[in-house]
Amino acid sequence: MSRENVYNFSAGPSVMPESVLLSARAELCDFGGSGMSVMEMSHRSARFREIFDSAKAKLKAAMSVPDSHEILLLQGGATLQFAAIPMNLMDGGHADYAVTGHFSKKAADEAGKYGAVRIACDGGDTHYSRIPSQEELELSADASYFYYCANNTVYGTEWHYMPQTGAPLVCDMSSDILSRPVNVADYGLIYAGAQKNMAPAGLTVVILDKSLAGRELPLTPQLMSYRAMIEHDSMLNTPPCWCIYMLGLMLDWLSEEGGVTAMEQRRRERAGLLYGYLDDSAFYRPCAAPGSRSGMNVTFRTPSAALDEAFAREAAARGLLNLKGHKAAGGLRASLYNAMPVEGVRALLDFMKAFEVRNHV
Amino acid sequence: MSRENVYNFSAGPSVMPESVLLSARAELCDFGGSGMSVMEMSHRSARFREIFDSAKAKLKAAMSVPDSHEILLLQGGATLQFAAIPMNLMDGGHADYAVTGHFSKKAADEAGKYGAVRIACDGGDTHYSRIPSQEELELSADASYFYYCANNTVYGTEWHYMPQTGAPLVCDMSSDILSRPVNVADYGLIYAGAQKNMAPAGLTVVILDKSLAGRELPLTPQLMSYRAMIEHDSMLNTPPCWCIYMLGLMLDWLSEEGGVTAMEQRRRERAGLLYGYLDDSAFYRPCAAPGSRSGMNVTFRTPSAALDEAFAREAAARGLLNLKGHKAAGGLRASLYNAMPVEGVRALLDFMKAFEVRNHV
Repeated sequence: MSRENVYNFSAGPSVMPESVLLSARAELCDFGGSGMSVMEMSHRSARFREIFDSAKAKLKAAMSVPDSHEILLLQGGATLQFAAIPMNLMDGGHADYAVTGHFSKKAADEAGKYGAVRIACDGGDTHYSRIPSQEELELSADASYFYYCANNTVYGTEWHYMPQTGAPLVCDMSSDILSRPVNVADYGLIYAGAQKNMAPAGLTVVILDKSLAGRELPLTPQLMSYRAMIEHDSMLNTPPCWCIYMLGLMLDWLSEEGGVTAMEQRRRERAGLLYGYLDDSAFYRPCAAPGSRSGMNVTFRTPSAALDEAFAREAAARGLLNLKGHKAAGGLRASLYNAMPVEGVRALLDFMKAFEVRNHV
Repeated sequence: MSRENVYNFSAGPSVMPESVLLSARAELCDFGGSGMSVMEMSHRSARFREIFDSAKAKLKAAMSVPDSHEILLLQGGATLQFAAIPMNLMDGGHADYAVTGHFSKKAADEAGKYGAVRIACDGGDTHYSRIPSQEELELSADASYFYYCANNTVYGTEWHYMPQTGAPLVCDMSSDILSRPVNVADYGLIYAGAQKNMAPAGLTVVILDKSLAGRELPLTPQLMSYRAMIEHDSMLNTPPCWCIYMLGLMLDWLSEEGGVTAMEQRRRERAGLLYGYLDDSAFYRPCAAPGSRSGMNVTFRTPSAALDEAFAREAAARGLLNLKGHKAAGGLRASLYNAMPVEGVRALLDFMKAFEVRNHV
């Protein structure tokens, strides 16, 4: 199979724009006449510093990050942040966690090692199929922060409002960062594993209100201290240079395509087409409740687990890849990140229609 | 400047074989007819699993890792291991640290957060110019482990013997892993940031005696628990996929070139040429004491700091890159990792001779 015949619906790592890959390929062995690959460059060299600074500046511009906030380019994925956030921000107190899916549950469990976790909501009883309303959130007084996951990759739900809380907002945007405008100043901390909308796996972006740093537990590893990482501009040690370089290329592409505003239009178009079809179909069933549906990860089922499996297998044979749902949720899932063209959704719909005709009872 | 005119003496990230870069370039947009870049692949897909398993198997073969030991492919660099090692292995006791340079000092400082650190030796008084002898090591009874850094990238020294201690050996091999045969069974834990001899920055390899895992502090972040990472075969979360893929390509190259035995011959040849010249010269002065000299990072000085600076600048103009010493040590440094051809050393010697003639007083 070649790229022309493939649409990759992976939940992450996920599809990247071909133009970005072509740029990376063109300068893989020799970046800008340096005689070196980016992979060979000293992270302290002026040339890599330029790549680093420029990626940060592009991200700052793409998300209109205010000067009150610092951008950190880290390692360890969201999972390491599950520990780093309470280590740095719990500050001897407690924090409110909205448990709306697989990863917010993991985050709350991990945070319990470092302080008192209060559960603001838990959608486990309803198979995480919906996001609670503002009124349903149980907010505690004097919480060090309120934690939520903007988009639940596994169950296919997404917050369509910003929770109003007295505490600083801490938000896992791994799956929907750069897919819509966000007012960064409203958040204490935004973070994201890069491997969906930003860069290859191995980079974690943290955007942090600087006034929140400096209160980490004494046992915090130096590499997980936001204070230390701010002081060293994310270069306390060797950063994941290649991923940072790729982030820069991805942000160039984003800018050329019209930025987060254009990405929001596209996600509406892609998700609208797919949910519209699912709602009209008597064969397929969307998993997420209306009003809580993700614009990034569309989860659905056929009438049976056996048909779900056949669907994923037959789709893959036709170049529609990675449609099997997460093992925790089952069913099917189409991840529609920034780099997924609307043609990919149309190709998926064509397949879905044909599959329905073949298997309808 | 193009690759043909460049020798990159960077201490890390560092030079990679051109054939490895060419392979990566050839399949960057489409890996093995998958229609996807490795950067776009789900880490749970069969195809990436194959890349992952094969990189691990190649490393196991290259280093003859026994079945008692597990290979972990992690993130966070050596700096995160500075914390992970005591968190997992200190076990409520104390550990002996050999402080022979910049990074072992950092490791000992960080370990102090998690248990009692006893300093087995400290070369700070002699500017870390030599490695202590076995007799000089102050070993404590019942240490949980003995920690040392096999090769000191900053000061250019290297252990030429394996310390004999009652405790399990924990060794930072970031700068000399895969440059010589090592009997892995003799070690409790070997680890290395990958960005010198193994892969691009963003991957950390840990090779661990499995019997040492499972005694981590309760506050250990899940991603830093060796037990959890062994259980999940390093895929508790999304691993640094591109770096792991590159590790596989690097290990293919290593194998084609004759493995660690051939690498040891080459390092002897490269370092021998350079130290031989330094010893004969009245102009240049090698920094490390004979008997403690690194085969990977050769540190030296001209008669003055001003000439050191001129040397690095003029060398760079001729394509001999990154010869400036680490800021903590000053002077000059030529890093001669596996991928540095002996021709690079000859080109450096030619430049050194000409520079000496021009500047000799």
